[in-house]
Amino acid sequence: MTDPLAPGATIGILGGGQLGRMLSVAAARLGFKTCILEPAGDCPASHVANFHLQAGYDDTAALTRFAESCDVVTYEFENIPTAALDTIEALRPIHPPRRALATSQDRLTEKTFLQSLGLTVAPFADVTDAASLDVAIARIGTPAILKTRRMGYDGKGQARIMTPGDAAAALTAMNGQPAVLEGFVDFTHEVSVIAARGQDGAVACFDPGQNVHEDGILRTTTVPALLTPTQRTDAILIAARVLNALDYVGVLGVELFVTPQALIVNEIAPRVHNSGHWTQNGCAVDQFEQHIRAVAGWPLGDGSRHSNVVMENLIGADMDRVPQIAATSASLHLYGKPEARPGRKMGHVNRVTGPAT
Amino acid sequence: MTDPLAPGATIGILGGGQLGRMLSVAAARLGFKTCILEPAGDCPASHVANFHLQAGYDDTAALTRFAESCDVVTYEFENIPTAALDTIEALRPIHPPRRALATSQDRLTEKTFLQSLGLTVAPFADVTDAASLDVAIARIGTPAILKTRRMGYDGKGQARIMTPGDAAAALTAMNGQPAVLEGFVDFTHEVSVIAARGQDGAVACFDPGQNVHEDGILRTTTVPALLTPTQRTDAILIAARVLNALDYVGVLGVELFVTPQALIVNEIAPRVHNSGHWTQNGCAVDQFEQHIRAVAGWPLGDGSRHSNVVMENLIGADMDRVPQIAATSASLHLYGKPEARPGRKMGHVNRVTGPAT
Repeated sequence: MTDPLAPGATIGILGGGQLGRMLSVAAARLGFKTCILEPAGDCPASHVANFHLQAGYDDTAALTRFAESCDVVTYEFENIPTAALDTIEALRPIHPPRRALATSQDRLTEKTFLQSLGLTVAPFADVTDAASLDVAIARIGTPAILKTRRMGYDGKGQARIMTPGDAAAALTAMNGQPAVLEGFVDFTHEVSVIAARGQDGAVACFDPGQNVHEDGILRTTTVPALLTPTQRTDAILIAARVLNALDYVGVLGVELFVTPQALIVNEIAPRVHNSGHWTQNGCAVDQFEQHIRAVAGWPLGDGSRHSNVVMENLIGADMDRVPQIAATSASLHLYGKPEARPGRKMGHVNRVTGPAT
Repeated sequence: MTDPLAPGATIGILGGGQLGRMLSVAAARLGFKTCILEPAGDCPASHVANFHLQAGYDDTAALTRFAESCDVVTYEFENIPTAALDTIEALRPIHPPRRALATSQDRLTEKTFLQSLGLTVAPFADVTDAASLDVAIARIGTPAILKTRRMGYDGKGQARIMTPGDAAAALTAMNGQPAVLEGFVDFTHEVSVIAARGQDGAVACFDPGQNVHEDGILRTTTVPALLTPTQRTDAILIAARVLNALDYVGVLGVELFVTPQALIVNEIAPRVHNSGHWTQNGCAVDQFEQHIRAVAGWPLGDGSRHSNVVMENLIGADMDRVPQIAATSASLHLYGKPEARPGRKMGHVNRVTGPAT
């Protein structure tokens, strides 16, 4: 553990999307400067960051300049090339830790790790070719879902196998990439825990939120989630176990499937998470500030929930509804993206539905 | 009234201090870009704005470039030279309106205007020289306070006259500038109303806050303020009367002295105001977003108060307390100023003390 960063220090953020944008605002609120590294120009985070270094994650000279201009480095997405991390880590601390990134980058590693902690995950099997897929289907059964081990998000890189006859098409959809077959889980709903761990080892979890997806993309998160008191405690203990096992620093998202028998860990994301956006209007300290506090070596803030909130993502043409939403008492958060393409997250709305219950 | 600005439009802000910083963040949250015009480099607003045009308020070419790069222009401080406004207003709309700026820039004009609305102000008299000061003292009596008509803030440009014998020294302190003599008001406390008016004429006032000053600088604002229900209603009606009389667009701060007999208007500020910082942690929509909504021609947001809050300014060496404050449940807002000079506002803390009462 290093000394806490003093206000005025610079926090580097790999990635310039909406998560980087809201992290930058949180960092500014605590008096930090921010430097974004992101290949795209006019990206959401660049509008509110002190510096935007427009360069690719394979540009070693730029990565070196980036690291040297920062006091500490964090990231807003998990698919950062290992070589980029090598370059940066030789110069500056990176939080969350590299092991969390490596674990979450690969679905097979991730599930194996979660299982090693004694947590329940969906049945899974390694798939490299038609033969191993047949073996996997024979063991796990159908329906099942084939997912690329790496680089999947928002439902991309996935193919459903309803009957063994779908196997060949599903494998083709993987484009030759290593994959994992996952058994279907008969869950009633999905919740997620946004959890934080400081450099001093302190853990603080936000109250679990209940997620609804559409077309593989998060649509809404509602707090409080539909959970029994025992499930709520279990959800938080699961998140804390993951944080401690990874000697984690920062905010982590844990997605859980709720079944009558168990909470099944779907996946973990070593970063602030879309399903934690409700914290901006439900807590004194939101997930973005909590992450910045952890990364800066500050004590974690007060993440207790003061309100019930429904967060709704604004995706693509949902932007047409902004004038109507602006006339309500909802809190709008727009990302400054120039083009409202289908499936593109353009912003979100937090509706406070009452004091916390 | 013009069409509402669409997300992606650019809002220009004259001045790059902490108010411009927090306005920029609010603008970004609604998907707007921001351009700051400010002579100083590395100013608080530049850390979070899209563009910082570093130029003086007398640089006509820069002002022209600034206006042309924005869709609408607002300001974070009231002492903008008239010539700068001429240049900008020929090219783009400016909110709040120029008359509000002109009125508040000059204490004599301001008090005359407030009196013309039937509002109560402290006894005042125009002072241009020793003879008019003698006349003013004879009429108003002592103790009284001599203030420059223009450019005073945070207690600067003021001299107390406890007895007529202090007159000469007080006049010397004015440095030859036109002044106003104000009678002392025997008030129990000061409150302020942060009020907003949209382009559609809708008015929304935040709940009055109670202010405590030290050495002429705001120290704390507490909500709710100590006011009878009647006083609270009167305070809001006073603010609304000022807004409507000025055909105002944006947020305005109204400082009121509370006496058993009346609410006496001390001064108005045609901008977001230090005594409105509590709204960041007490309302769904804070004064900064409210101002941006008005300036952009959007409907005003929900400024109802959900919590009791104490706002404390962090001034100069108060920055040494930041590590202690960070370990509490208070919400920190730091301005990114490099040097903690005495009397310099470095940040503020909002402490939520409970649900709204």
